[in-house]
Formats: sequence, structure tokens, C-alpha cells
Amino acid sequence: MASTPVTRDTINPKVLECEYAVRGEIVILAQKLQEDLKNNPKSHPFDEILYCNIGNPQSLGQKPITFFREVLALCDHPALLDKSETHSLFSADSIKRASQILSQIPGQATGAYSHSQGVKGLRDTIAAGIEARDGFPADPNDIFLTDGASPAVHMMMQLLIRSEKDGILCPIPQYPLYSASIALHGGTLVPYYLDEATGWGLEISELKKQLETAKSKGVCVRALVVINPGNPTGQVLAENNQKQIVDFCKKEGLVLLADEVYQENVYVPDKKFYSFKKVARSMGYGEKDITLVSFQSVSKGYYGECGKRGGYMEITGFSPEVREQIYKLASVNLCSNISGQILASLVMSPPEAGDQCYESYSAEKNAILSSLAKRAQQLEHALNSLEGVSCNRAEGAMYLFPRIELPKKAVEAAKAAKTAPDTFYARRLLNATGIVVVPGSGFGQAAGTLHFRCTILPQEDRIPAIISRLTKFHEAFMKEFRD
Amino acid sequence: MASTPVTRDTINPKVLECEYAVRGEIVILAQKLQEDLKNNPKSHPFDEILYCNIGNPQSLGQKPITFFREVLALCDHPALLDKSETHSLFSADSIKRASQILSQIPGQATGAYSHSQGVKGLRDTIAAGIEARDGFPADPNDIFLTDGASPAVHMMMQLLIRSEKDGILCPIPQYPLYSASIALHGGTLVPYYLDEATGWGLEISELKKQLETAKSKGVCVRALVVINPGNPTGQVLAENNQKQIVDFCKKEGLVLLADEVYQENVYVPDKKFYSFKKVARSMGYGEKDITLVSFQSVSKGYYGECGKRGGYMEITGFSPEVREQIYKLASVNLCSNISGQILASLVMSPPEAGDQCYESYSAEKNAILSSLAKRAQQLEHALNSLEGVSCNRAEGAMYLFPRIELPKKAVEAAKAAKTAPDTFYARRLLNATGIVVVPGSGFGQAAGTLHFRCTILPQEDRIPAIISRLTKFHEAFMKEFRD
Repeated sequence: MASTPVTRDTINPKVLECEYAVRGEIVILAQKLQEDLKNNPKSHPFDEILYCNIGNPQSLGQKPITFFREVLALCDHPALLDKSETHSLFSADSIKRASQILSQIPGQATGAYSHSQGVKGLRDTIAAGIEARDGFPADPNDIFLTDGASPAVHMMMQLLIRSEKDGILCPIPQYPLYSASIALHGGTLVPYYLDEATGWGLEISELKKQLETAKSKGVCVRALVVINPGNPTGQVLAENNQKQIVDFCKKEGLVLLADEVYQENVYVPDKKFYSFKKVARSMGYGEKDITLVSFQSVSKGYYGECGKRGGYMEITGFSPEVREQIYKLASVNLCSNISGQILASLVMSPPEAGDQCYESYSAEKNAILSSLAKRAQQLEHALNSLEGVSCNRAEGAMYLFPRIELPKKAVEAAKAAKTAPDTFYARRLLNATGIVVVPGSGFGQAAGTLHFRCTILPQEDRIPAIISRLTKFHEAFMKEFRD
Repeated sequence: MASTPVTRDTINPKVLECEYAVRGEIVILAQKLQEDLKNNPKSHPFDEILYCNIGNPQSLGQKPITFFREVLALCDHPALLDKSETHSLFSADSIKRASQILSQIPGQATGAYSHSQGVKGLRDTIAAGIEARDGFPADPNDIFLTDGASPAVHMMMQLLIRSEKDGILCPIPQYPLYSASIALHGGTLVPYYLDEATGWGLEISELKKQLETAKSKGVCVRALVVINPGNPTGQVLAENNQKQIVDFCKKEGLVLLADEVYQENVYVPDKKFYSFKKVARSMGYGEKDITLVSFQSVSKGYYGECGKRGGYMEITGFSPEVREQIYKLASVNLCSNISGQILASLVMSPPEAGDQCYESYSAEKNAILSSLAKRAQQLEHALNSLEGVSCNRAEGAMYLFPRIELPKKAVEAAKAAKTAPDTFYARRLLNATGIVVVPGSGFGQAAGTLHFRCTILPQEDRIPAIISRLTKFHEAFMKEFRD
């Protein structure tokens, strides 16, 4: 009689291999400390945990965009639309938009499963939003609405990976969803290194080198992942660089998997976001020239609606027979959540100049984006002024990824504690300040280098205190371990 | 230069193998006919498509429960709680509940990622609901909130299946999520046949026989899937039968995967739903005796909130080290959508006697459930009066699964049309009446038998017309193909 039929030794080894540091051991420790503080507010030398490990803006006090939430509430409870009091509680634009959206949903049934790609009318809206963004046509039948971008990424990995002999080119450092998904689907991550010295530059020569190395090991490389703006690295690709990448994928027969979830998060005047589809089309490449998937999410941007789990992928350049298989994968899970679908349509078609609520909407949006830019700059400056720390510019996304040079003694202390030096540093930081960051090893880093990822998301009025806590900790740490 | 790097021959063969008939070829044809009707209402001998292929109540006109939607709308837009007009638009109970829920969410941030298992406070509520249902303790740390039940099922398959040598015992007929998920994860479906003659009885002797057969082929059987109430078969297991199943799993060291999403859908006075956890605990079996996963969803029951994608699994009897791996799998996708989480907490703790809105809530709930019972009976009766058709009682769930005996000539015509006879019948039915059902082959059926699955979900006032269309079609079909 077997009392425990499932043990660590008898589960799928791919699950064991998979790692996801963004919610890994440092975060589990943070949750423990938070519990301590709840039971005894004096149990640690800080009074709260500051979660800078994850791009989760509203958990740190960012307010949702009013227009979006008004529309969602009305769609959740359409009976409100018939009540006169509703007009004093909701903006006329929200009422109008909610009515439009409900008319696009068969039977106005926001509680029904939709088409497995998402409600057709909402996909029409999203396609129109993509067209307006890019200046090139978009087809609603190319859109697959998903519960955030993660399930879309899994779907593509599931489609492309047959065995460990199939490889996916991924940046290092990378967002660990990619390494986790590749591990779970039993493929091989083929790393290409971003060049920290040139602001995390993406060099085609490096792509070529890694592709050849993989091929020589018998790995069939199927796709290239590009995260733009970069996570965890924060760089925004130059248009010319994107053209090279498109040409590389075209020439090598790779699917280009473009993680474009930070498309609204660009903070520097000398950089601009261009979608890979726009770049490819502007080069004259159509459906037959390049196979491209673009991922978008409602969790990022200025909206930061992580809890709504909305997102989509736009797939172009796939044959009808392969599209049919992608549709089948989507249909097994029936559909993504309708509120997330509605929100995805809203972020791709927000209020426009001339709309009654445009001014208040723009004020909310611009306040968030300009504050994020300011916070990025302040934190970047503070990090660069620490001994042994150098930090590239956060041009976009929501993160800083500073490099830290630790004294030999600290590296030895980490070894003695049986942990990686960056994890040792992150744990010490957490225990001393309550600030949660993710060790660089969770994203991958060039051999011999150490980093951590820290979000720029704490509210602006908190930044000075965070900088002061961080600085004090770092100085004490360096003093303790100075060689 | 490869212009299409992805072809049907180069994608993951597991994707090709996977099938999901509930949204398969008949539904794709239905969507085409619907498009035809939109362009020309006279293009077919019916004026609308009736989707009886899928348990999607609100797509067929079922109204959501008012209390649930009021709470969701308030949680989507918490600013409403501060407005005096809100009291004339929402019930006092909804306002109170929404405030309670918001106080359980850190920072009231319904737009933030939650704990990867779901918001702790909502899990507390769900655990209390399970305790109230079962009379045995439930631990909020055993609950994993998910976007509907499907991702939870995938997560367990991902955990348990290492290769095609790992088998999962599944009922035949089964809900094709299971066969699809097993195929995608590369495992082996070990079928056990429900006995149509005894009202889709689940015989332990059959389980034993199939387990031994699988073992003799070198398959390591890891889990037993039981769907109760049954999908597509509609039977409700007797408590005594459940005890035998629990003992079987305990003895054979199998994880019991209990699909209990239809727990509120029981229509006959002589049957009652018992959760497998209640049954196991009432036998004196605790955490160490049996490893059990219970799946629940907001898509079914009297609520039928399919579009909200809420659900959970309760896992018991797993070791801490395996639980850690399950948590890691959940964390890779960050969390499920918060509206779905809130709704899952609501369906497990609906208004109670004494609450102001209890009467109106109960009226809505009872109207839906009693109408479903009536529709099940009417359709069952109508099907049983057709030549060559026999249909078991729909004791629960949302489906009828009639057996059809087709004339030889019809079987030959199907062969000539290169399709299965049940698909042939379903396609003919659709083309003649606009009624969409799923061929039995999509669920699996005993060799030599033919069935289809039809939901009981069209609104009550439509049932007579459906019965008359169905009857007329069937008579004409039998006449056309009579041997």
C-alpha cells in the first residue's frame, strides 16, 4: 500500500528543472518576514516589506485609470446602464463605451465563454488599435486574446518545441518566464548575451555565433525571443537594430517572438517604441517573408492592470494549417477571461482627443508615466553612486538591473552559506531593509558578473527613503566584507 | 532561405495528436452557417444557430445572479463605495460584501497580481465554504485559485506525467479536456468504461481490469480521474460507490483527481452530491491516507459564469516538497484573474438566510436550477421517444448523452463521406435545424455504439421548438436511410 503516490523523485523532471526566481526563495523569505511584522511590528529593523521584485504597480499604490475601471464595472453589471443614477456616477464616455462593448458581445453575455480567440468585436477594436499604432493593416483573425501574456508564450513554446533538440534563442539576461516555459516544454534555451557595456546592446554577430554553436551541437533553433523594451535590462532597441533582427530571422528561418508588453513604457526622449511588425512591414516584408508573434499585456504600460490577466498575441506569417493547430490549443482552454479581453481592447483604443473624458484620462496617464521616468532616473542615479555598483539607463520597461562588484570576502561568505553571491546580497538587503529585489542569477548574467533586478515602481514620495535605506545598507555591507 | 519556418510537419506532434471536439469541426461549421445567416437570413432552413455543444449557460440567455455581479462591479471600481448614489443602485449586502472583499486584498488593489495561489482572504472564505459543505476542515493553503478549472487540470497533468509510460485512468465517455491534456503532456490515457446499461455506472471491477491491463503493458498508472456529476453522461455517483473508489485509489496508490465542477447541478431527489474529500474523511482517511485533488469552477452550477474564468483546486495528501513544486508551477503564470478569484469566493459563500438579499438571491438560484431540471426531463423524454434513440436520466451536470442506433445505410453514407457515423448525424442535424451537438466520438464511447452530447441549456420557452425540430429531423433522417 503506497501512502504517498507522488514524491519529488516521481514527478515530471521538467517541473523540477523549471525555475522562476521572480517569485522564488527571496520572495518566500519576504512573505515570512511580512508575517513576522504582522505578529510583532518590532520584529525587524523596518516596518514594512517593499516588493521591488515584480512589475506589479498597483500593489505599490498606483491607482487604476478611472475610465478603464468605469467601463469594466458597467460591463460586469449591465443592469446599471438602464438606471438614471448611473449618469451621476459614471462618465458619459464610459457609459457609451460600455454600451458599445456590450453590443459587440453576443447576447451582451459577459458571463459566457467567447470564441476561443476572444470576442470578435473586441479583436476588431484591437486590430484597429494596432493599425493606428503601426500604420500597417492588422487582421482581427490574427489576434488571440489570453489571460495575460504568459499563456500566449506557453502556447507558442508548446507549438514549437518537439524535444530537447529544439532550441529557442533567448536574451541573457532574460525574463524567466522564457527559461521556465522552455524547461517545462522540454526544449533547449539557446542563450545570446546582451552587451552590458553598450547599454545592453543586441549584436547580430552574437546571435549568429550562438546560432552556429547550437547548430553544431545538433540543436534545431526554431525561434528568437526579443524583449523590447527590455526586461530586466530596460533598454529600448533602435529601429535600425530591429531591422537587422528581422533580416536575421528571415534569413535563418526563425520565428520572431517579440515580447512587446512594455510598449507604452519608454522614458527617454531619444528612444521610441516601434513594433517589430511595423519594422518588418516598413522593410517591405509581408506575411510570406517573416513569421512573427507579438505579445501584449494589460499588466504593464501606464495601466498596470496585472490582476485582470488580460493580454493578446498577434500572429502573422503562419500557414492556415498551423494556425488551425494554434486555434485548437486555444480552444482546449475555451477562452480567456472576458474582463481581461475588454481591458485589452480598452488599452488598445483609449479615449481620444475630443472625447469628454480625454483630459482627465490623459492627466492620469501622463502623471503615471512622467513619475515612472522620474523614479527611474532617481534610482539609477542613486545606484550609480554606490561603491562597486554600475547601472545602465532605464530607457523603458519597469526595472533597473545594476551590476554589483562584491568584495572577495562577501563571495566567500556566500559560499560558506551555500548560496550564490547575488542571492546572498539580496537576502542581506531584505533582512536589513525590507526591500525585495531579485538576484541576477534568476535572469542569467555573463559569467563572473553579479546583478539584481529592482523595479522602479514604489510611489514617488517613497523613493528618497528607499534610496537612503539602500545606501545605508550597501555601505554597511561593503564595510563588513571589505577585502 | 526558409520562408515558412513552421509547418504542420515540424510542430510538436503532441499538439497534432490533441483533440477537443467540444470546439471541433461541427462548431466550426456552425460558425460558418451563422455567418451565412448574418449575410442572408434566408440562406438556411432555420433562422439561428442553437449552441448545445458546450456548457455555456449565459450564451443561451441565462441571466447572471444579481448579487454576484453587483459585488464584482463594486470591486472593479471601488470608488463607487464612497458615493451616496451607490446605495440606490446596489443592495446593502453587495456593498457590505464588496467592502469585506476589498479589505482582504492588500491595498484594496484588485489590479495587482495576488499571491500565486490566490488572495489569502479569498482562500480563507473558500476554505470556510468547503468546511460548511463537507463538515470537515479545509485549509486555505491547500487551495489554488485558477482561471477556470482547465488550467488546474493541466497543472496536475504536467506534474504527474513524465513520459508516455505514465498513465491516467479516465472514464469513457470523458470530458475531452482530459484526453487533450494527457496528449499535450505526452502521457497515456488508460480508459475505463462507464456502464451505460446501469445508468453509466462506475464499476470497481472495470477499474481493476483496466489498471492491470495497463500495468501489463508497462504503463505506470498515476492517477484516476472521476467526473461527478458526470460529463458528458450526467450521472451522480452514489456515496457507497465513491467509498469504493476512494479505497481503490488508496490501495493502488493513485492520486484521485475529482472533477466536481457540477457539484451544484443535481436534479433528482434520490441523488445528492458528496465531495470525495467528505467521503474520504468520513471513512476516517486523512492527509496521509489518500492524495486527492478536487476541481471546482465558477462556470457551472446555477451561476454559469463561464466568461469570468474562475475556479480552484483543493489539493490534499501531498508532501511539502511536492506542494512546493505545484506552487512553483502556479507562480510561473503569476496568478489567476482577481475577478474570477472573487467570484470563486462568492459561489462558495453565497448569501445566507437572514441576509437582506437572501430572498431575491434564492429566487434567482432556484428558478435556474428548477428550470434546468425541467428542461433535462423534457429533452430526455423527447429523445427517448425517437426511433433508435435511448437516453439515460440526466441526474446532474448540464448534458444528455443519448445513444443512437443508425441504419446501416446511414453508416455507409458516413463512410462514403469519409466521416464517423455520429459526426455524419451531427452535421446533418446542424445543417437541417441549426442545433449544434457534439458527436459521441469526441468523448469516447464503447466500440460499436454511437452517441451525441447535447446540453440542457436552451431557455425553457425554446425547448418545445427544439424538440419539434429535432424530432422532425430525426424522422426524416431515419426515413432517408432506412435499411
